[in-house]
Amino acid sequence: MDARIAYIERLGDARIPSPLPSRDIDPEHPNPFVADSHYIPLHITRYEGLDRPGNVLFEKAGPREKIFFDPERSAAAVVTCGGLCPGLNNVIRSLVFSLRAQYGVTRIHGIRYGYHGLNPANGFPPLELSPELVSDIHEVGGTILGTSRGPEDPQVMVRFLRDLGVNMLFPIGGDGTQRGAHKIHVAASELGYPLSVVGIPKTIDNDILYVSRTFGYGTAVNAARHVIDVAHTEARAVLNGVGLVKLMGRDSGFIAAGATLASGEVNYCLIPEQPFELGGERGLLAVLEERLRRKRHAVIVVAEGAGQHLIPRDSVEKDASGNIKHADIGLFLKDRITAHFRSKSIPVNVRYIDPSYMIRGLPADTEDSILCDGLARNAVHAAMTGRSGLIIGLVHNRMVHVPSHMITAGRKTVSLDGELWKSVLAVTGQPAGWK
Amino acid sequence: MDARIAYIERLGDARIPSPLPSRDIDPEHPNPFVADSHYIPLHITRYEGLDRPGNVLFEKAGPREKIFFDPERSAAAVVTCGGLCPGLNNVIRSLVFSLRAQYGVTRIHGIRYGYHGLNPANGFPPLELSPELVSDIHEVGGTILGTSRGPEDPQVMVRFLRDLGVNMLFPIGGDGTQRGAHKIHVAASELGYPLSVVGIPKTIDNDILYVSRTFGYGTAVNAARHVIDVAHTEARAVLNGVGLVKLMGRDSGFIAAGATLASGEVNYCLIPEQPFELGGERGLLAVLEERLRRKRHAVIVVAEGAGQHLIPRDSVEKDASGNIKHADIGLFLKDRITAHFRSKSIPVNVRYIDPSYMIRGLPADTEDSILCDGLARNAVHAAMTGRSGLIIGLVHNRMVHVPSHMITAGRKTVSLDGELWKSVLAVTGQPAGWK
Amino acid sequence: MDARIAYIERLGDARIPSPLPSRDIDPEHPNPFVADSHYIPLHITRYEGLDRPGNVLFEKAGPREKIFFDPERSAAAVVTCGGLCPGLNNVIRSLVFSLRAQYGVTRIHGIRYGYHGLNPANGFPPLELSPELVSDIHEVGGTILGTSRGPEDPQVMVRFLRDLGVNMLFPIGGDGTQRGAHKIHVAASELGYPLSVVGIPKTIDNDILYVSRTFGYGTAVNAARHVIDVAHTEARAVLNGVGLVKLMGRDSGFIAAGATLASGEVNYCLIPEQPFELGGERGLLAVLEERLRRKRHAVIVVAEGAGQHLIPRDSVEKDASGNIKHADIGLFLKDRITAHFRSKSIPVNVRYIDPSYMIRGLPADTEDSILCDGLARNAVHAAMTGRSGLIIGLVHNRMVHVPSHMITAGRKTVSLDGELWKSVLAVTGQPAGWK
Amino acid sequence: MDARIAYIERLGDARIPSPLPSRDIDPEHPNPFVADSHYIPLHITRYEGLDRPGNVLFEKAGPREKIFFDPERSAAAVVTCGGLCPGLNNVIRSLVFSLRAQYGVTRIHGIRYGYHGLNPANGFPPLELSPELVSDIHEVGGTILGTSRGPEDPQVMVRFLRDLGVNMLFPIGGDGTQRGAHKIHVAASELGYPLSVVGIPKTIDNDILYVSRTFGYGTAVNAARHVIDVAHTEARAVLNGVGLVKLMGRDSGFIAAGATLASGEVNYCLIPEQPFELGGERGLLAVLEERLRRKRHAVIVVAEGAGQHLIPRDSVEKDASGNIKHADIGLFLKDRITAHFRSKSIPVNVRYIDPSYMIRGLPADTEDSILCDGLARNAVHAAMTGRSGLIIGLVHNRMVHVPSHMITAGRKTVSLDGELWKSVLAVTGQPAGWK
Repeated sequence: MDARIAYIERLGDARIPSPLPSRDIDPEHPNPFVADSHYIPLHITRYEGLDRPGNVLFEKAGPREKIFFDPERSAAAVVTCGGLCPGLNNVIRSLVFSLRAQYGVTRIHGIRYGYHGLNPANGFPPLELSPELVSDIHEVGGTILGTSRGPEDPQVMVRFLRDLGVNMLFPIGGDGTQRGAHKIHVAASELGYPLSVVGIPKTIDNDILYVSRTFGYGTAVNAARHVIDVAHTEARAVLNGVGLVKLMGRDSGFIAAGATLASGEVNYCLIPEQPFELGGERGLLAVLEERLRRKRHAVIVVAEGAGQHLIPRDSVEKDASGNIKHADIGLFLKDRITAHFRSKSIPVNVRYIDPSYMIRGLPADTEDSILCDGLARNAVHAAMTGRSGLIIGLVHNRMVHVPSHMITAGRKTVSLDGELWKSVLAVTGQPAGWK
Repeated sequence: MDARIAYIERLGDARIPSPLPSRDIDPEHPNPFVADSHYIPLHITRYEGLDRPGNVLFEKAGPREKIFFDPERSAAAVVTCGGLCPGLNNVIRSLVFSLRAQYGVTRIHGIRYGYHGLNPANGFPPLELSPELVSDIHEVGGTILGTSRGPEDPQVMVRFLRDLGVNMLFPIGGDGTQRGAHKIHVAASELGYPLSVVGIPKTIDNDILYVSRTFGYGTAVNAARHVIDVAHTEARAVLNGVGLVKLMGRDSGFIAAGATLASGEVNYCLIPEQPFELGGERGLLAVLEERLRRKRHAVIVVAEGAGQHLIPRDSVEKDASGNIKHADIGLFLKDRITAHFRSKSIPVNVRYIDPSYMIRGLPADTEDSILCDGLARNAVHAAMTGRSGLIIGLVHNRMVHVPSHMITAGRKTVSLDGELWKSVLAVTGQPAGWK
Repeated sequence: MDARIAYIERLGDARIPSPLPSRDIDPEHPNPFVADSHYIPLHITRYEGLDRPGNVLFEKAGPREKIFFDPERSAAAVVTCGGLCPGLNNVIRSLVFSLRAQYGVTRIHGIRYGYHGLNPANGFPPLELSPELVSDIHEVGGTILGTSRGPEDPQVMVRFLRDLGVNMLFPIGGDGTQRGAHKIHVAASELGYPLSVVGIPKTIDNDILYVSRTFGYGTAVNAARHVIDVAHTEARAVLNGVGLVKLMGRDSGFIAAGATLASGEVNYCLIPEQPFELGGERGLLAVLEERLRRKRHAVIVVAEGAGQHLIPRDSVEKDASGNIKHADIGLFLKDRITAHFRSKSIPVNVRYIDPSYMIRGLPADTEDSILCDGLARNAVHAAMTGRSGLIIGLVHNRMVHVPSHMITAGRKTVSLDGELWKSVLAVTGQPAGWK
Repeated sequence: MDARIAYIERLGDARIPSPLPSRDIDPEHPNPFVADSHYIPLHITRYEGLDRPGNVLFEKAGPREKIFFDPERSAAAVVTCGGLCPGLNNVIRSLVFSLRAQYGVTRIHGIRYGYHGLNPANGFPPLELSPELVSDIHEVGGTILGTSRGPEDPQVMVRFLRDLGVNMLFPIGGDGTQRGAHKIHVAASELGYPLSVVGIPKTIDNDILYVSRTFGYGTAVNAARHVIDVAHTEARAVLNGVGLVKLMGRDSGFIAAGATLASGEVNYCLIPEQPFELGGERGLLAVLEERLRRKRHAVIVVAEGAGQHLIPRDSVEKDASGNIKHADIGLFLKDRITAHFRSKSIPVNVRYIDPSYMIRGLPADTEDSILCDGLARNAVHAAMTGRSGLIIGLVHNRMVHVPSHMITAGRKTVSLDGELWKSVLAVTGQPAGWK
């Protein structure tokens, strides 16, 4: 088998016996550890029974028999960056519980307001994360640590962590954050300071490369589905009602596609991966007009990054994280649909809903709660072994180690040939192409 | 006692024995009827034990011993008008069940798309409302009949109803709708056609005069509260975060005030009844700046009709119902707050949420479900006695008859001297005045 | 007007100006106070325009211009007793916020595990209730103070409170708790210790005399309604399915009746106030058999205190609060229904659900959150004026003072002649009597 | 690679071009089909990079380029059997939509009350499943078809289906149902009647062999988690409170384990796979007593099939499906815990909750909605190709074909060496063994 193994860096040999099985072991199930030689492949479909050429193998995450850091002399830090995402507090809580209860690490610092809190010049001292403080935080959304966008100097951050005695850093954030995490990992190496940097990828859009599913995505799809149901109700209640829902998805349509499948009431699902046209015989306006004639109502879901080529713009804006700010496709569509039908003297009632800020701050649902707990515990296991420069990801429902530099090389998008998109086409009945 | 009785018109004498106690009567509780001589006062507070001068007495709603219409020869029509409101389908369902099961009226027409469906020229024939059709509709939001804004010719509508043989009309809608209902009532009188017009007031804003509470309001407050909680989460998660939530309330702040009380997390509640200023030493911007300095975050709730005097505008727009269209105070505040802090180089993160369309289409919550059921059943009782030109309202938790012309004389607003607003001031700690 | 005023005891003259309007007063709405001369009548229906003979007037609750206790030298205590009820934490939180923010009372003791915590021999020292501690507690169910059943010696409790310097006690609990509160009030008088005892009635069953509605009831009805919906789903899915739901209601059927109205799917609602029979031509079994023949499924709701006369029992048990323990009518009905149909060889599938413990621990819904906040703030207002031996109650949507001894004289029950029960008969179509 | 391919029977050659891409094809993504040569392996972990010996490959599900049945001459039947499970109506709806919209099959029969409806002697004629009938059914729980337990004669059922002209049968049910489905498949072969039998496995317990996840499981875990949260609230509110929750799980602890992980509040999770003891130094009672001493409260989750060896019983009962009826471990534990502490004069308050019937009838959550839709659509694809004697299963998030006889050979259980159980041990901190 010629699959390539995704190489994970280690700070040194892991020689300390893990304190993990500290409680009584069931003699019939003595081994709570994962071996280093277990891997999960990126691609699992076999063609004529054969593996896919160029497959990649990821190390299976989990507790190891030997660890690198002495728990009694160790300290950890947790930092949350970027926009809110359901589950942040669950991850923080499980990191604290796992570090303490499973390994006995008690000094755990909560960094305030993202990477800003790692630069002492900004004046936000860390919060001490005790079990009492975190015990109920998973019941509320947001992050108790606060968050922010934008980088700080890696050297400054490493020195600050060294002064605190921190040897394990858990950055929770999107690809920008993990790029920053990688720089911290590199800066620590250069300074010769043994720091394990183990990231937990956070993107409500679910667009992290290689990873099947990120936390918060499920909660977002669930909330989005209920918004679509309400838009459907509004659309059905008036003559030629059009429910138009803009959902998160800067570069990928995973939330839009997932919510479309879950709702079963969407007629057009527009995502960044599939360009569409407004005008022309087979453009959205003509197709919508035809549907209203037959059915008197319609529901459209549009991801925020869809149809950007349609919007005239003067200049490109970026936010503090360096992400390109998108022109508002939702308002644009609302105006264009209204204008189109008005020009034809056909009555139309467009109900436009943009629920983004109502979704990001929700507490994690059940699925995401379980996912967050698993990600956090496996991050602790990885950090204790001295691994660094990686993130914990879910691949085919298995927790694995993925090198940070791999996931920051791009973003995952909805494959127009894949099962997700084919399901969307089947459920909506929308055209496969718009030209 | 010098209280005035609110006079209700009747089409004639009620001489037919009510079929109501058709099933076996419990000998110990033989009388299911309400007497005509029972009244509920508008004001109930006694000053030094005395009644309020100029008090008004409303007829208690409920089944009467004698009715006017012969159930077997009767037919009813139901029409829903204006914007969506949680509970419309509950009202439709309970009207149908009550007409059929309690009185034996089986011909019940559902008018399509508001008053438009009462003008045959528009081409929307009524829907027959069978028990099978309506049995599960209370579980979903919206209205199965469809709705619209805007009037039709009362004469045309009465003739259409007469042709259908309808002698009881139940218009469900706001003050515009009830004004239209009153015109239908007058037109029927003029034509000498015995038509009972019994309205059920619908306003999610809870701004119907005299009436303690309208259906949909409770569901809206509940939904709004959860939106505020999410805004609070967003505001707390960033440095100088401001959660700004715009809620429904064109002329009144009931939803904003109720959601503020329920949430317990709001710092400023801005409503149409209480003008506020942005600038000046005690204006909103100064007060907000002071709070951010101390607490680093804030939550603002603003009713859509608040602060209209602050917004420069060229002309006044009206919607199809004749309501003045408000300039968007939410976006205005967002811009002004952002500009203010930017001009002072203070970082600020405003999260603006406008959940209106997400709330109107919800199904009724428990409280509203019970309210809708009571309103509908009492509307049927009133119509069967030949009463006309009235609405059913809840006054001090009792169902009463209110003449239509009384409620269309104005709109109920939040009293700045009353308990509701005093509670809001206590819970938020916001200034009682802004100058 | 010959109505009697419900007399409220006061510890002495209120001479201290209230600190209430400490923030800037709006010159147009200068008076935040309620006058002592404002009353709310118990009965509001007017017969031929006349008041009801023997009506009772309750003092309107609210802030007074003069208070009795000097806030700076005052301390308060809060105690929660009896079973869980949604809203306990809301009441605790609002008491703390109101005492501090509105009056400046900062020493607030949280008594642990009910009255047991007022006897130092039990060894549960009070918890100091700071704003930080209580700020988020309204989001979770239960009571942060803990609760218990059963009394302690009033003399012991008063001495303990005196030693703590507490002059305002807020007991939150049912009629047993308020009876205990009254004994504390009397014992303090006898000891000459100026102690304001202001209770907040807590009964999920809504069975406090005179009071329209108690907190937790609305949340319970809402939860019960959803359980009924699931029972309906189970019943419809199988041949001759019977969904049988037992709800709380030891002596009264308010929850059963409210949930029946809200659900709209119940066929038989059985409550303690209306005795029913199983056997006989018009007994429940015969009526149910007839329905299954026609409809193949049925939904029954039974309050825990209903039909107790049907259950053979040997002895009467009481719980620690002295309440008679009821035999389980739910299991009894399940067995009898199953046996009846089996004896006739008719297939039947009874799905029995008892959700009590799943309901009591829920967080308060929106309506109850607002109610709890109002009850707590008005309790503080009353205590500050030196009033004692009363509870705060909601009567016709107005907050009033009710003497404790009035509400402990009995329990409120569902009137079989009233609107609530008539609505239940209309919605279910069940027989008015069972003989 | 020596992996074995799970062989799927076919009724004959698939020669008819699929009508699937009937709408306009996007020229860049022309192929909506899955090739027959694509497989998904049962085991995906690689040891030292090597495949697991004896691995099994399952055919990937999905639309094929050629089909066996001519859609215009085809008819389908859907039957739901066994206990309720969230998602049954979603599966029915998606089967109907997929058969009609994707293939043009319009004759679709809904079989009433499980296999009973396939025996004409029982007198339940099928329901015609039109798009109008099923369009909103996914919003409610249960099954519109009704369900039952127990078998019918396969020959009788096949003749009934043949008389109806049905050539595709979709049985939705657990392993008993799929065993019955396999007998129908065999009986049809013997009669020479070309009938595709494609099952959709239904088990809320998630215990179908080989399949990663069955529909309804996620919804059940979510509901169970909220019940645990309430039990936790009850336990914390009283001295030595013990929240005891019995969850579904006759032979497997998946629901108990999943809800334990999601809640994060469980101290002891008891499942059928891991025997436990009550008495002895390391038995549950001793461990619980020790915890109450330290923490004053505890939460226990027990799967219905756990600890059966502890319960003395006289005889073994079976239900109509032939499943062994379990003695009630929940009530047993409640009694034993209460007795233990009473015997030691330690106060204890056990709150026992059994929510099973409140969970089975819920509507499907978002995750399950998407899963049901995928299962149903892939079942249609499989049946149209003439495949028979299989079920559609989700393996590593891919839809696959699994031969019916494979899944009925046993039941999937929680591996005590696997990640799920290790996570439970980590989250609860409970002993790995009880001896």
